Amino acid sequence: MDTIGCIGLGIMGKPMALNLLKAGFQVGVLESSVTASILVEAGATAYPSVAALTTHADVVLTMLPDSPEVETVVLGDEGVLQSITAGKLFIDMSTIAPGVSKVIYEKMQAIGVEALDAPVSGGQVGAENASLSIMVGGNKAAFDRALPIFQALGKNIVWIGPAGAGQTTKACNQMIVGITIQAVAEAFSLASHAGIDLEKMREVLLGGFAQSKILDLHGRRMIDGNFKPGFKMKLHKKDLEIALATSDDLGLTLLGTTLVADLMAQAVTNGNGELDHSALYLFQS
Amino acid sequence: MDTIGCIGLGIMGKPMALNLLKAGFQVGVLESSVTASILVEAGATAYPSVAALTTHADVVLTMLPDSPEVETVVLGDEGVLQSITAGKLFIDMSTIAPGVSKVIYEKMQAIGVEALDAPVSGGQVGAENASLSIMVGGNKAAFDRALPIFQALGKNIVWIGPAGAGQTTKACNQMIVGITIQAVAEAFSLASHAGIDLEKMREVLLGGFAQSKILDLHGRRMIDGNFKPGFKMKLHKKDLEIALATSDDLGLTLLGTTLVADLMAQAVTNGNGELDHSALYLFQS
Repeated sequence: MDTIGCIGLGIMGKPMALNLLKAGFQVGVLESSVTASILVEAGATAYPSVAALTTHADVVLTMLPDSPEVETVVLGDEGVLQSITAGKLFIDMSTIAPGVSKVIYEKMQAIGVEALDAPVSGGQVGAENASLSIMVGGNKAAFDRALPIFQALGKNIVWIGPAGAGQTTKACNQMIVGITIQAVAEAFSLASHAGIDLEKMREVLLGGFAQSKILDLHGRRMIDGNFKPGFKMKLHKKDLEIALATSDDLGLTLLGTTLVADLMAQAVTNGNGELDHSALYLFQS
Repeated sequence: MDTIGCIGLGIMGKPMALNLLKAGFQVGVLESSVTASILVEAGATAYPSVAALTTHADVVLTMLPDSPEVETVVLGDEGVLQSITAGKLFIDMSTIAPGVSKVIYEKMQAIGVEALDAPVSGGQVGAENASLSIMVGGNKAAFDRALPIFQALGKNIVWIGPAGAGQTTKACNQMIVGITIQAVAEAFSLASHAGIDLEKMREVLLGGFAQSKILDLHGRRMIDGNFKPGFKMKLHKKDLEIALATSDDLGLTLLGTTLVADLMAQAVTNGNGELDHSALYLFQS
């Protein structure tokens, strides 16, 4: 089986790397990763540099917070692109700007390397349970090659289209999630001020057209006042900024996305960026 | 079993009255109703006036388009309130302003009649299949008395609280549904302009946090370009206006609801009010 070099071993990347080990893959990590020792204990091999890791891996897989981190790790002076060789596969599972994914794809193609953008939905729980949704952009043959890797990480795995298509789909996912949180937050705010029992309201609305995973899970959070992340507001704000930059490039105006991005930006400015994104409920007026 | 006088035999009211007959209730209708003959064929009795219908019924049930129609039928010169007598039950299943429901409740209480506001979610299909969600405001004892009637009409039946609570909950339902449609419409618009295969996107997003009944059913409508109602844009606009009037009374600002109400109002002004509310997808730019 392939040896997979995993870069980015945080809340998402660590359980994903552990699931790759469980599925029988060889896993390489960077010695400098904060959680490298946990992975090494579980059977991974640690390497002192991106170059060493990339040299020993068949597939390099990144799971990083944002576009700049991916650009540094992949395109930087000591980045993956400097040491990866023809015939290998690069997979970025971070959520970043589709344009950056396309640049990486082009540069990798130029040296004979296939690159996939494969962002995920499902959060920490999905990463731990190997139940992530994975939306993939890049060449179909590269997707087929990567499928056993994805199957060790997730359940709902779809090849969407060419390079960047995974990231664009993820941006759309984050738009829907963010706006739906606002929908539930507004409704719960109105109901709460009108003296309605939110518990009963959630129950009856889950049986009708208003049903959503957000009403179910984040409606529960709003009722309980539990805004421990989960998925941090500041990260969702970043994802909506990606969506808005993408829509700008296409000459589109996303009214609901703009509204929710503004509300999240205000929350972050006011020091609430570390709260779960469902904390939008606290900022209704 | 109770005799139920049904006023309002339209897209929703007709199948609901038929389901009451199926469940073994005696049903009275107005001769002047457009679909009265269909109900009479199915076993209902027709009466020449609201007064005659009310006199022969134990329970009067209304299912009308909007607050003015309910006010006319219930509070008007020849309305239900003129002929209903102490000990009977009045149930309004229309979607109207919570304030109107409270006025009706007070006036009915003054003459010894219990009144329930019991709006529904689930649409024509839910009405036909007796699978409506029913959110009920009024006194709990009246709800208990009405439960066998509701059970002939729906599945998810919840007593929310005092008079008006059903309507407030319905307003919240319509807010969530409307804003979620906008969420899906924006995402599909961005994706479509970016060349993403909407079919694949819907598939992968239904497996993650963006899942909703709207993404499922109205996402399908958007892909198919099928905007035959269903639920008309002009009615949803009316419902959001109820939500906004309610929030004004409470001193709240509903940003997402205001946005979607404006978009729906523009659509109605431009002659698209008869389209399904999922046609918001057509008006993204």
